[in-house]
Amino acid sequence: MKFAPVLNFLGTLLIFLGLFMLLPLVWVWYYQEDLWPRYVLAAAVTVLSGLLLRKAGKGDNVVQVREGFAIVTLGWTAMAIFGALPFLFTGAIPSVSNAVFESMSGFTTTGASILTDIEALPKSVLFWRSFTHWVGGMGIIIFSLAILPILGIGGMQLYKAEAPGPTKDKLTPRVRQTAALLWGVYVLFSALETGLLMLAGMDLFDALCHTFGTMATGGFSTRNASIAAYDNPWIHWIIIIFMVLAGINFALHYRALTGRVLVYPRDPEFRFYLAMMVAGTVLLSASSWRHFGSLEQGLRDSIFQVVSITTTTGYITADYEQWHPLAVIVLVLLMFMGGMAGSTGGGMKMMRILILIKQAHIEVKKFIHPQALYPLRMGRRVIPPEVITNILGFFLLYVVIYVLGSMFLVALGLDLATSFSASVACLANIGPGLAEVGPVANYGALPLPAKWSLAFLMMVGRLEVFTVLVLFSRSYWRK
Amino acid sequence: MKFAPVLNFLGTLLIFLGLFMLLPLVWVWYYQEDLWPRYVLAAAVTVLSGLLLRKAGKGDNVVQVREGFAIVTLGWTAMAIFGALPFLFTGAIPSVSNAVFESMSGFTTTGASILTDIEALPKSVLFWRSFTHWVGGMGIIIFSLAILPILGIGGMQLYKAEAPGPTKDKLTPRVRQTAALLWGVYVLFSALETGLLMLAGMDLFDALCHTFGTMATGGFSTRNASIAAYDNPWIHWIIIIFMVLAGINFALHYRALTGRVLVYPRDPEFRFYLAMMVAGTVLLSASSWRHFGSLEQGLRDSIFQVVSITTTTGYITADYEQWHPLAVIVLVLLMFMGGMAGSTGGGMKMMRILILIKQAHIEVKKFIHPQALYPLRMGRRVIPPEVITNILGFFLLYVVIYVLGSMFLVALGLDLATSFSASVACLANIGPGLAEVGPVANYGALPLPAKWSLAFLMMVGRLEVFTVLVLFSRSYWRK
Repeated sequence: MKFAPVLNFLGTLLIFLGLFMLLPLVWVWYYQEDLWPRYVLAAAVTVLSGLLLRKAGKGDNVVQVREGFAIVTLGWTAMAIFGALPFLFTGAIPSVSNAVFESMSGFTTTGASILTDIEALPKSVLFWRSFTHWVGGMGIIIFSLAILPILGIGGMQLYKAEAPGPTKDKLTPRVRQTAALLWGVYVLFSALETGLLMLAGMDLFDALCHTFGTMATGGFSTRNASIAAYDNPWIHWIIIIFMVLAGINFALHYRALTGRVLVYPRDPEFRFYLAMMVAGTVLLSASSWRHFGSLEQGLRDSIFQVVSITTTTGYITADYEQWHPLAVIVLVLLMFMGGMAGSTGGGMKMMRILILIKQAHIEVKKFIHPQALYPLRMGRRVIPPEVITNILGFFLLYVVIYVLGSMFLVALGLDLATSFSASVACLANIGPGLAEVGPVANYGALPLPAKWSLAFLMMVGRLEVFTVLVLFSRSYWRK
Repeated sequence: MKFAPVLNFLGTLLIFLGLFMLLPLVWVWYYQEDLWPRYVLAAAVTVLSGLLLRKAGKGDNVVQVREGFAIVTLGWTAMAIFGALPFLFTGAIPSVSNAVFESMSGFTTTGASILTDIEALPKSVLFWRSFTHWVGGMGIIIFSLAILPILGIGGMQLYKAEAPGPTKDKLTPRVRQTAALLWGVYVLFSALETGLLMLAGMDLFDALCHTFGTMATGGFSTRNASIAAYDNPWIHWIIIIFMVLAGINFALHYRALTGRVLVYPRDPEFRFYLAMMVAGTVLLSASSWRHFGSLEQGLRDSIFQVVSITTTTGYITADYEQWHPLAVIVLVLLMFMGGMAGSTGGGMKMMRILILIKQAHIEVKKFIHPQALYPLRMGRRVIPPEVITNILGFFLLYVVIYVLGSMFLVALGLDLATSFSASVACLANIGPGLAEVGPVANYGALPLPAKWSLAFLMMVGRLEVFTVLVLFSRSYWRK
């Protein structure tokens, strides 16, 4: 691995991140908070570190695949660490571990929080907290649609042809072009949601923060009760619609916006994504109707929770732990599935689940005709065998990491429901889990090693497992 | 599929099973129980059904691969149903569902019981109960070493070359030869264990019953407290040793007995099997030493529970649910792994786990050198890619069936710990799980649909998933 281009890239990233830290100043001024020197200090430290890194990384600047892994993993790590500075310097989150956890949760669009009383925090801090989601979501769109296909991870090379922009061998120009086009879609949807939320009665501040949480499928709210704090069905429905949109492959959005609206129903992953959410809603309402007030409210709550969990957002309008245990299990299963590939959603991705189901069926059929060839088709495309093996390997590693992560929490003394739900809630970038980290609780009371390991799981899950694991392999560091 | 050879085979199976039902008469006579007409009736019904099936199945008798799936699946089903007759006719288990559950649990060598007071049953019934294990274990050795490789299931074709006996294309002669040789080993070990247990102080009846439970990795005991009822370290250690032996590939035993003792340490799966049990014991003792009386007793209990669970036997000397939660999780993980391929143990099999781990490592290495070829080696052998895909598919289906099975129990209203542990305890053919089906509890109180679905899981797990699933595939029934 060449260090120069990695350091150079991290430097540039930190300079941008530092400049972003000046954005909360708008709210410092608007809400007349006495915090501006703190943000300026955080920004200065970050920009300065960025300049130093760029200096250290002068020279050879050609990024190749091998450097790609380090750039992405270290990039998210750097964002999480420096992004914690505003929390620390403002005194909003005085503990380093907690601040980094919250920041990692933000940039990985997880939405798991260590905060007990969110509403007690200065508005500018809440803005920064939600803004980390939005930045993380931007990063993820580019990561999954422009970088992953080049790294060749877990079947994502299938999307090589799908993303807009020119296809060249060197990473940078292609990534820049793709970024510009997809961010356009992201910004457009964000503006739309903010406008609609304001029409429904939110003020600009809350509308922006919840838009950041929705479009990034993050889940940080400005209210202790999350979306349940808003007793307004319009707000719930608007957020449902934009969560669904955020869980869709952004390359599809781009093509739909250029006039080809039929790309949605023609996409097999999209149909599967919708089908899973419909099935989840049916199972939830059928098992838990006893807990519902009215039909509209019960259905809305079911749809909201299913969409929020499936897209890995983590917003909440009802305490689903009070529902029938089957509803809880269905939600946990949906956590693993996650959004579509190329969306801001986490989890294993619907595309992989669909390919796994098809492959399982083929494995059974092969016993009856061992000589026959059964190509695995997604729409008109045939998935090559090495991609299928890679996706099966992804599934295996995902399950193993999940179980090991849960076991580590159990070893620390946490109960089973907390351990096994916190692990998936962080690995799949959802946020709320069950029991001690349930929808009406938070991660604040967990022991320190639990917080650090969960923050690590967030990153492993967000970066599609392999990106991070590769760095721990001996062959990566060998010349 | 041709029905004639299937019916013919099932008929022969039932005739043998019916004759076996006369064996408990020895104990009826010895313990002077007033039950002999009941066993004779059960035997008569079974033999007669067998004769009728043979008559119905006259004609074409050549068994091919396609018939193999039906013979194995229906064979175990028939054994479970007719094997329940002695329980029903003696009045020991008056409910049909319970009797079939107990019988299925016996023939699949699971050891899950619906009985609350085992010791209240007539001795002859207890003998039949344990004997079903021994018959099931015999069946499994032949199934896994002679039939599975021909069916080509989940990597077991690797063992095609390993089993003794001539290799021909037609199933029957090869299976008969292999059976004779391997059953010799099975009977030899069984005689040895019975003798040792009697030397340690058990009477012939208890020694035989516990030998059946050990060698088949079943787990039915004649005591309510399982092996904990014997306050005799010798008995514990003898059972530990024979559980370990029963969890080893019987083809290895056969070769070792013909003079090649080094086959054990040379076998990569054997080394992995031992390593997992050592690791499990270390984790158990390290996390739960506070619960131990003396060092010897604590270590012995740890080893006993780890060996019993890993080999999927299910005997118990300590209530492991009282131990540290980490110990519980380690035991549940070992449940999934199971014994070696070609043993009487259940679970996914150590061979598959080892191949999955190696494959996961290869998947990571492939990112760094996408063009390089990394053959997966087990000892000196290279595993072909289609076998690896098949094993990955097996893992996928195993996890999916486990989760669906657990969800079904949750939907019936069982708590999470019971549902998720009962599913693996039955799917992996262990027996005891956690909570309502924990080591000091039993399956008697579960609702009827739970019992039937768990009995189905026992069969699916015992027959390596695909054997059963194939029968549910449309292409199987197509001409």
